[in-house]
Order: sequence, then C-alpha cells, then structure tokens
Amino acid sequence: MPERTLLVVGAHSADFVWRAAGAVATFVRNGGRAHVVAMSYGERGESGELWKQPDQTEENVKRIRHAEATAAAEHLGASFEGLDLGDYPLRADEDAVGRLVEVIRELQPRVILTHPDKDPFNPDHPVARQAVDRARLLTSGAGVDSAFRTVPPTEYLAFEPHQPELCGFLPSVFVDITPVFEQKLSAMAEMKAQRYLQEYYAQRAEHRGNHARKVTGDKSIRQAEAFQRLVPNVVGAL
Amino acid sequence: MPERTLLVVGAHSADFVWRAAGAVATFVRNGGRAHVVAMSYGERGESGELWKQPDQTEENVKRIRHAEATAAAEHLGASFEGLDLGDYPLRADEDAVGRLVEVIRELQPRVILTHPDKDPFNPDHPVARQAVDRARLLTSGAGVDSAFRTVPPTEYLAFEPHQPELCGFLPSVFVDITPVFEQKLSAMAEMKAQRYLQEYYAQRAEHRGNHARKVTGDKSIRQAEAFQRLVPNVVGAL
Amino acid sequence: MPERTLLVVGAHSADFVWRAAGAVATFVRNGGRAHVVAMSYGERGESGELWKQPDQTEENVKRIRHAEATAAAEHLGASFEGLDLGDYPLRADEDAVGRLVEVIRELQPRVILTHPDKDPFNPDHPVARQAVDRARLLTSGAGVDSAFRTVPPTEYLAFEPHQPELCGFLPSVFVDITPVFEQKLSAMAEMKAQRYLQEYYAQRAEHRGNHARKVTGDKSIRQAEAFQRLVPNVVGAL
Amino acid sequence: MPERTLLVVGAHSADFVWRAAGAVATFVRNGGRAHVVAMSYGERGESGELWKQPDQTEENVKRIRHAEATAAAEHLGASFEGLDLGDYPLRADEDAVGRLVEVIRELQPRVILTHPDKDPFNPDHPVARQAVDRARLLTSGAGVDSAFRTVPPTEYLAFEPHQPELCGFLPSVFVDITPVFEQKLSAMAEMKAQRYLQEYYAQRAEHRGNHARKVTGDKSIRQAEAFQRLVPNVVGAL
Amino acid sequence: MPERTLLVVGAHSADFVWRAAGAVATFVRNGGRAHVVAMSYGERGESGELWKQPDQTEENVKRIRHAEATAAAEHLGASFEGLDLGDYPLRADEDAVGRLVEVIRELQPRVILTHPDKDPFNPDHPVARQAVDRARLLTSGAGVDSAFRTVPPTEYLAFEPHQPELCGFLPSVFVDITPVFEQKLSAMAEMKAQRYLQEYYAQRAEHRGNHARKVTGDKSIRQAEAFQRLVPNVVGAL
Amino acid sequence: MPERTLLVVGAHSADFVWRAAGAVATFVRNGGRAHVVAMSYGERGESGELWKQPDQTEENVKRIRHAEATAAAEHLGASFEGLDLGDYPLRADEDAVGRLVEVIRELQPRVILTHPDKDPFNPDHPVARQAVDRARLLTSGAGVDSAFRTVPPTEYLAFEPHQPELCGFLPSVFVDITPVFEQKLSAMAEMKAQRYLQEYYAQRAEHRGNHARKVTGDKSIRQAEAFQRLVPNVVGAL
Repeated sequence: MPERTLLVVGAHSADFVWRAAGAVATFVRNGGRAHVVAMSYGERGESGELWKQPDQTEENVKRIRHAEATAAAEHLGASFEGLDLGDYPLRADEDAVGRLVEVIRELQPRVILTHPDKDPFNPDHPVARQAVDRARLLTSGAGVDSAFRTVPPTEYLAFEPHQPELCGFLPSVFVDITPVFEQKLSAMAEMKAQRYLQEYYAQRAEHRGNHARKVTGDKSIRQAEAFQRLVPNVVGAL
Repeated sequence: MPERTLLVVGAHSADFVWRAAGAVATFVRNGGRAHVVAMSYGERGESGELWKQPDQTEENVKRIRHAEATAAAEHLGASFEGLDLGDYPLRADEDAVGRLVEVIRELQPRVILTHPDKDPFNPDHPVARQAVDRARLLTSGAGVDSAFRTVPPTEYLAFEPHQPELCGFLPSVFVDITPVFEQKLSAMAEMKAQRYLQEYYAQRAEHRGNHARKVTGDKSIRQAEAFQRLVPNVVGAL
Repeated sequence: MPERTLLVVGAHSADFVWRAAGAVATFVRNGGRAHVVAMSYGERGESGELWKQPDQTEENVKRIRHAEATAAAEHLGASFEGLDLGDYPLRADEDAVGRLVEVIRELQPRVILTHPDKDPFNPDHPVARQAVDRARLLTSGAGVDSAFRTVPPTEYLAFEPHQPELCGFLPSVFVDITPVFEQKLSAMAEMKAQRYLQEYYAQRAEHRGNHARKVTGDKSIRQAEAFQRLVPNVVGAL
Repeated sequence: MPERTLLVVGAHSADFVWRAAGAVATFVRNGGRAHVVAMSYGERGESGELWKQPDQTEENVKRIRHAEATAAAEHLGASFEGLDLGDYPLRADEDAVGRLVEVIRELQPRVILTHPDKDPFNPDHPVARQAVDRARLLTSGAGVDSAFRTVPPTEYLAFEPHQPELCGFLPSVFVDITPVFEQKLSAMAEMKAQRYLQEYYAQRAEHRGNHARKVTGDKSIRQAEAFQRLVPNVVGAL
Repeated sequence: MPERTLLVVGAHSADFVWRAAGAVATFVRNGGRAHVVAMSYGERGESGELWKQPDQTEENVKRIRHAEATAAAEHLGASFEGLDLGDYPLRADEDAVGRLVEVIRELQPRVILTHPDKDPFNPDHPVARQAVDRARLLTSGAGVDSAFRTVPPTEYLAFEPHQPELCGFLPSVFVDITPVFEQKLSAMAEMKAQRYLQEYYAQRAEHRGNHARKVTGDKSIRQAEAFQRLVPNVVGAL
Repeated sequence: MPERTLLVVGAHSADFVWRAAGAVATFVRNGGRAHVVAMSYGERGESGELWKQPDQTEENVKRIRHAEATAAAEHLGASFEGLDLGDYPLRADEDAVGRLVEVIRELQPRVILTHPDKDPFNPDHPVARQAVDRARLLTSGAGVDSAFRTVPPTEYLAFEPHQPELCGFLPSVFVDITPVFEQKLSAMAEMKAQRYLQEYYAQRAEHRGNHARKVTGDKSIRQAEAFQRLVPNVVGAL
C-alpha cells in the first residue's frame, strides 16, 4: 500500500510548529509520512530576538532558523525543507509556484496544510497561501487526463492563524493531539527565541482541547488543534 | 457497545428522501440505527398531485403521505415518525421544541441532519431548522452537569436544499452513496406523485458523485450526497 | 390582458414615499395598478412633530397620518391602506401575516416591494419584512397545486433604507424616475412635518441618478431610486 | 454634569464577569456608574458543580448564583440585578423586553454591552441579545420626539463570546484593562465552581493584551478585553 | 440604430458553451451581435480525451479546440476568437489585459459575460475574471472625458460555474433559453470529447428552467441559464 | 512629546479632498501633522474637464492637478506629495510599495487613511489599497525587533468610497467635521473642474452629520465624514 503523505507549507520556518505540530505528529504516529516546506526562514520579520545579538547577519539567522526548524520537525517525525525565498516581503512568483509544483508532484501528498487566505497582521501569510492554491490546482488537471503530469487530489486545510477572527478563520475540524502533546511541546521548545509563543500555543492547545471536549463529550481529550477545510471532504459514511 | 444512532429531522415528510436517503442507508448498512422525524406531512403545500383527485381531504392526504414516508424509510432500514404539526405554515412553538427534545433524549443520536437556516422559496424549512437548533442545545447542557437530563453532544449537519446558493448552503462533506444508490432510488420511487423530484435528485446524486470524484480522484464513486457541517467535527488524526 | 399590480408594504405609513414613490408612479404611468399597505401609522415613533402640539392624541395622529399617506399615494396614482397594527413596537403575529396573505391573494401582485431584513436603527422595519416574507411564501405553494388558494409568483425587491450599508442593502437595480420626479416631490411634500426627509430623499434621488448615469452612460437620467432584488429575476434576453 | 452609566446585560449571571469585568471596572474607575442585569441565573444549564451536591434545589442554586454575582459586581464597583426569567431555555417575551425597557429608561445608559447575535453552543445568548436589541430601539424613538418617553442614544457593543469565530465575533475595539486586572481576577474568583473559566479568561486577557500591544506598539498594555461595535461610534477627531 | 453587442470572455475555449450558449443565441435572435473571446484553448488542462490519442501534440490540440469552438459559436450565430495565452496556468499580464481592452474598444459591447471571481477547483477562471474586470474599467474612464478613448458602460454579469456554491455564485437573473435550447444542444455537441459535460449542462438548463418557472409561474419556460449581475442594472420601470 | 502624524494615501490626487478633508483639517487643528500622498494625478481617467481644452497635454494636466491638490491640502493645513505612477491603469509594483515604505518610515504616522479594498467602478483604488496594506505591514515587523527598521503601529482606516455598499464599505466611525467644514468646502473648491463632486460631497457631509446626530443625540453636529476601521482600535476605557 502506498504511504500516506502530509505536506505542510508555511510562509516562515516556524509556522508549522505553532499551528500544526500536533497534527503532524499524529499523522506520523499513524504510519504516514510528513514533510514541511517553509517558503522563507522569517529571517527578517520574525527573528527579533536573534537580531539583538551584536554583529548578527542575515546568513547566520537563516542558519539558526534552519537548524531550529529541522530539529522541531524531527521531534514530530517529519522532514523539513526551506525554499529560502526571503521574507518581509515574501515574493511568490511563477518560479516559486513551480518549486511547490515539483514538491507536490514528487510527494503526491494525501493532505496539504497551509495558511488562511487573509491576515491583516502579516504581509507574507496570504502570499504563501496563494502560491499553494495555485500549485495545488496546477498539479490536479481538474481530474482529467492532461498534457502534464497530474497527481491524485489532496485534502486541503488551513491551520489556525494567530488572530483567527481577523483572518476569517472558521474551524471545521479539531484534531485531538492529546497523545502527542509532549512532542508538540518539544518541537516548540526548539524555537528558543520565541518563548511567548511557546506559552501562547500551549494554552491555545488546551483551549481547543476544551472546545473539542464540549463538541464530543469525550473527556479524555486534553489538547487539540483547529483546522478549516478548504474543499469538502468525502467520506464513506457519517 | 452502544448502538450509533442517526436522527434526520425534516419540515415535511418527503424531505429526508431527496436530501439524505443515501446517508441514511449507509449509516444503517454500517450497523447504526436511523430514525426520521417529519414535523409535518407537507399535506397542504407539497402534495399538489394528490389534491388533483376529486373529493380529496386533508386527512386522506396525510394518511397517504405517512404511508409513503414509512415505506421509503423501510427501503433505507430506518424508522419514521410524523409529528403532524401542520404545514404552510409550519409553526414550531416551545411545545414542538419540547417534542424534539424528547426524541433527542430518548435516541441520544450521534449525528443529526436537518435543513439549512435560510430558504427564500420555502416558509417551513427555516422554522424546522430553528426548532432543531434549539432542541439540540436544550439537551446538551453545554457539557456540564445540569439541573436537567443531558445527552452526549452530536454531530450536526445540514442536508442539501433545492437551490443551494440561494439558501447559503456551502458543502463541507460529501458522502459516497454508490453502494446504496439503488436503495435511494427505491425510496424516492415511493413518492409516487413527485416524479420530477425523483429525476432531479437522481441526477443531483450523479453530479455530486462527479464532484466527489474530482475531490478524491477515486473513480469508483458514482453517486454522492452533499452536507454542510454546522459545528466543527473532532477527529483523532487527519 | 390582466392588469399588472404593484404592492408596496411598509412598517409605517410614510415609508413608501421616501423609498419608492418614483417606482410607484412609473409603474402606474406604464398602465399598472399600485397599492400601498402600511402595517402601522408610525404614530408613536415617527410622528415627532405632531406630538409637539398641545393635547395631541394617538387617535388624532393616526387620523392625520392616514390623510397624509392617502394624499401622497394619490399624487402617484396609487391606493393606500393602513393595517393599524401599532408601532414601536410593531408586532406581526400570525393574524397580521394572515391579513397580508389576504391582500396578496386579492391583488395577485406582479411585484412586491418592502424593507431590507436588517435595520440597526429601527425596531419595526425587520418585523414588517419578516411578515411580508412569510405572507408571500404562504400564498405561493412552491409552484404546485395545493390545499389552499395560491397566486402566481411575484418579483420581490427591497427598497432603499435610510442607512444602506448598515442594513446590508446592496443595490441590484436602479429605476430611472426622471419622468415622474415631480410626482415624488409632491408626494413627499404631503408629509408636512418631515421637512428634513423631503430634502434628504430629493438629494438621494439625484445621487442615485448620478450612479445610474455612470452605470449606463445615459445622460438623460436625472433621478433614480435603488432597489435590491430578493429573488432572481427572469428575463427573455439580456 | 450627569453621571455616565454603563449597562451590561447577560443571559446568565456570570456572563459579565468573564467577558467584560475589566471594561466595567475601568468605567467605574473613570467616574462612571455601572449596572449589570442578568436575565437568568444560569441555574439549570451553567451551574454544573452546584448540582453535584446532594439534595441541591433550583432555589438554592439561584440564591448562591445571586450572591456570587453580587459579590463579583462589588469588586468592580458595579450593581447587580437578576431578572430571574429562567434558563435553558431562556424565554424573552414582550414582558421581558418591557423590563429591559424600564431599566434603560431609568438608567439612561451611555454604553450598553451584551452578547453577539449568534452562538452555536448556547441556546440562551442569542435570545438575550435579541431582547436587548429590541429594548434599546424601543427607547430610542429614532431620534425624534415621540408618543413615549425616549432616552438619549447609547453606544452599543458585543462582548467576546467563548468561541469567537463560531459566533461571528469580529473585534473592533480592545479595552486596555491593565490597571484594573486585579479587580477582574477578584471578580472571577467569586465564581468558585468555575475554576476552568477563571484560568481561561485570565489567559484570554493576556492574549488580547498582546494583540492590543501589536496594534498600538504601547508596551505598557498587559491585559485587554475585546468588543465589537454594533453601531458606528462618533468621535470628534481621529 | 447601432447594433447591440454581447461579449463573452472565458478562460478556455469551451467555457462559453456550457455556461452561456443559450444567452448568446437569444441575444443574436433578438437582433444583436455576439462575440466570444477565449483567453486560452484549455489545451493542457481541459482536453483530456484528446491527449489519449498517440502522438498528440499541443499544436494539434489547439487546432482541434479552435475548430470546435468556432463551430459551436456558429450554431449560436456568434463569432469566436482565441487569444492563445496558454492554460494551466493561464497568465494574464498587462499585455493580455491590453488585448481585451482593444476588443472592448472595438466592439463597444452592451453586455459582458465572464467567470465568477473565485473557483477552488480551477486555477485559470479567476485569472480570466480579474483581467476582464481590469480591461472593462480601463475602457470606461469612470463616465467622464479622458485622455484615452472610452466606450459606453456595459452591463456586467458572471455566468454559472460548475460548482456554484463553492465559487460564491449567487444567481440574480435567469435567462429563459427555451426558444434556443436546440441551438445550445448543437453547440455543446461540437465539444465531442466532453460527453459528460453535454449531459450535465443539458440537465442543468432543465433545473434552472424549473427554478425560473417557480419564480415566474410561467409554465412555458422549459430551460434557462443563471447569471449573477456584477454591477446594478438600470431599468426604466419595474 | 512627538508630533502625531496622519498619512492619507489616495490613488489619484483629488481622492483625499472628497473623502477625508474634514478629518485631515480636524487632525491638524488638534495639533497634529497631516501628509497626503497621491499615487497618481488621475491625469488620464479623472481629469475629463481638462481634456476638453484644445491642445491639452498629459504633462500640463499633471501640472494643474498637482497645483490644485497642493492648494487644497494647504486649506487643510496639510502637505501634499504626488508619486506620479500613472493612472488608468495605476500599477503598484514592489518599487512603488518601496516608496510608500519610505514615506511610512520617515513620517511614522499615527493614523493611515486609504481606499476600501474593492471598487467595482474604479480600476486604481484597489491597487492603491493593496500597496498601502503591504507597505504598512512591511514597516511593522509584527511588533518585534527585526532585521529592518520598523515603526510603531498605526491606526488604519478606509475612507468612504463613492458608492459605499458596492465597495463593501461598512462605516465604523464618524468624524464630526462641523468646526472645519468651511475648510473642506474651500479645499473642494480648488478642484475647479469637478463641480458635481463638490456638491455631492457637501451633501454627503450633511447626511453623515445627520447619521452622527442620530447615533449620539448631539444636535450640535452638522457635518461628518465616515470611516471604516481596518484593524481594531484600542482605547483606555469606553
């Protein structure tokens, strides 16, 4: 049986940790393969603590961010790849879309996770989303034979942004991450310079766990992550 | 292990057939129990052919509609119950909500299906939806111990209306009904006076099947039904 | 050929003048019949100037408002009827809906105009809208023969509210009222105590005329009124 | 100079504490008066811990909830009043609206805070909101002299619900509650049986504080509360 | 009197057939001129059957698609033009917009039809829409004299996409295509490799015909097409 | 104390006058500094009267428009700067965004005003908005230290477009411009060739003044301007 693969695409190298580490670890624990692509390292706009060090350079920040993301991905059982397209602003031209197309053709992912399409507080997140939208459709051929190599359709979901309402994020699925929550904590701990976000997203997982408990009545759920489906999913039965 | 139960609530006695017969039959085939509640028989506003017969009476129309719905439910392996609250207009006061509360307390359904909240072409569908919303919340106790008997939370979905866009219907899940499609055809055939709808919803199932094939790439899907989740669902993994 | 009839339903007796007088006069000028129903006289909440007179009574205010609305309707060639259901709050129970049902059955209108469904500045407008929605559907029988007398379907539009954006009003049609603008001015002038609104809606007609000129490039349009279609319209050709 | 008054209306007696305690305390600290109205005590649906005690009665639960809410309000410098209309389901008929009308006439509040209009997890919150909407408009007379006693218009805002996105909550204003955060903690501590919510809303205040810091760049903000304006506000200058 | 002209712009060469053939034929039958522009031939992403032939080439696919579209347009009385900009991905830079600008200046169309602005299943449809939006505005000069040659404003509508709800398509006008339905069938039959879509859109026309019958009560309507107005239309009377 | 600065960015050189002159003058009167940036002079698409002069040239139109905008800004106490990027179409590439970034870095504005994100009647307004969105975020660094120079966050509002509802404009704040209304009239009078807009926006200010009076009950308000907040604002108290 072919391996099930999960692809996570973030604008910056730490995005996947805060928003989807639990879903990634769960996917791997269930026998799947997970791969993370960061379109940039967030080296300019999201590495504030690192820039406090004297004589800091952009290359060094990117090196550190690459190492942190790789280590975080390892805690989850995933692989990590940085496209190094630059941040603030991230620019995703047709070449960048082409690189995502290659990744999708090679991995043939069953599920793709990325950003919501709107974020009034971040210039790069919507750019990343638009590129993933486009790459995903350019490999799908609308379900017919084509002049180009297509891959099977994927599930497609947005992970939770930092300020959900202001990004138009409406959760449609919660993933119970209780069994892998320690892995998420370990992955977040790799992002050493972002202590505030470690606490914020640990609490957020507890809150989403509470919501998931209320929705299901299943008191064994402690932590969860929220996602929004971008295309309907297909099931054999309810 | 307790039996899984599906509850379908429609404003009129034939609603469940057109919009959810496939999901009902699939649920039963998978070992669950399905129960259909019709708030009225649609005896005034949706039984046009029957009123063409001379000397037709409201009681007789209701009798025929009850028999048709019961037979249709049997094709799907489900039970049927008519609350006989009257149609055009359906009125759902607190007593009517109370009857739905009793049904929910007794069945403890795992999944509830009903109408979207808006329909510019039907006066009764939104009334039914509002009553189900209310009954569902009044049996849930917001997840805490309460002064009244609560039941475990349910999944909650809207089935597809006749004119989806004008009802604000946005599908979030397709159910593959290929294996039970003959059952849906048989159930629809019981609604003898509504030949047009039989054809329409058979075609609709084909179209939704096509959409589901495009989403999954699974060419074995022939027919499907579309639903919109009204509360997020919770899953252990993607 | 049967006469084409236009029905306008307002919460208060002056609503039709500000928002639809031009469309009413145009309809009549084109050979149709127009009838205005006011669910109340706005005697409590929209007759401020009249209450400044010493010893004013509710009955007297209603008498004056009835006379003003009748005179205004006459300028447009329309008939006027007040249901006298009371305002602030207007209550539209099933009996009130039943009265609208009777009006619709008798008139068999080709077009119905009423309020948008939302108004953060007026408690009665949404109540009127909901009653008209319901009465309209209860006389339509969803296009089939029914146990009750149905009438042919109508076009259905909302007229422009005082603060369009805050009411969710999105214009989908402008009516050129240039040829009947004097009639609208005369009708508005009957509302003697509401001089501000006379000026406001005269200007509004100029602005909507400007919008209509920009949309069409037709420089002969001077004044217009804006409406939002609530159900799609059907045309023989574009 | 007349005293500025703030009115908070919740469906249940603890709602104001979690969602608006900081804004209430700030209002009082600035010299205003604050009054809290609870439409019910939440005695059936939101007092789970109390019902775990043997021989508990509804009257006793209501007594305890009244005492807790009164004590919490005192920490904030506010007064508390329970309408005792019953919960799960809360029913707000015209009499209930009339009681709110009386409160608004007497207090002549400058600002009113209440629930968003939608909540897929709570049957009573939207009922409370609708009653406040109606009472507020029935005392406003659309800015004109009327047949009834009107009061000056109020600012009108929704406080933050438990699951903002699913309630359609879009924050339009954050209140910096740093100087009164200890008072909010004390008020929340009165709700002895709801320890989880105490923690949740303490964290929520930190998160909203972070959002407010990002929006302003003012690092002295530690905690904040989020509100959505329901009517535009008017300012002398930006 | 100047000839009335209709312009249809699609991303791929077959789009106009499925979605607007009836409106095109009706327009021509009423004495107008119709011109179809395809931004690409859909040679890569929407010509699956053709690619099943051995030794197929892109040039040959484009040649076949051009011939099919030209023949289909002839059945409707329209002319066809392919811009050959490439598909999957369609790229519409300022030069492409410039070509549409030239078409609009030359034709001075009274009505423009194109795609909705959103399509989660197709990468090219939104690109085409955006180009048409831009070209249309760049020839309009906001209704004033300009430094460039402007043309009279046009009506502007979106035709129906394949999955209306997921594309945010809300029909605002149905065109009765009963008298020209045979022409639509003939036009669709030219698209020999897309038998499924021929059946789908024949059925869709029946469904929309049913909707149009319900809206008007006019039983002579058998088939219809649905469109969404993108700017308000202006009428002389209702 | 550092000076408070207001930045207004319009697509064309006259936009700021119609939509925000009152807010600009009020800001300056309160001791702040105001700077206006026009991305183009609207020399091609919005200077119709000027093009009626024989032998008119683009350079001359731009010269006149620059002089008019400078004079208008002076009436308000503001400075004016034209980026001269060309109009119809305005193109805002990364260089153009870079110029706005420089302006924002230098001014460190407390408030930024610009266009809504949608305008079905203007090709340039959404382009300007998108550029300002991007420049604003690229100077904010998400509130953290960065590899680039950031500035304190700004308030961010859209000014009122010509057809508010069709642009999705929902006012969230009215500015009372009564004390500076004469200045707005003087500024508008500089736009000598656009007499219609002078009248339109004078009336619009009266209407918005009426709305503001209704919202506040403050009868001293005569004229106002409407704005929509694009990010929540933060206040010390309600």
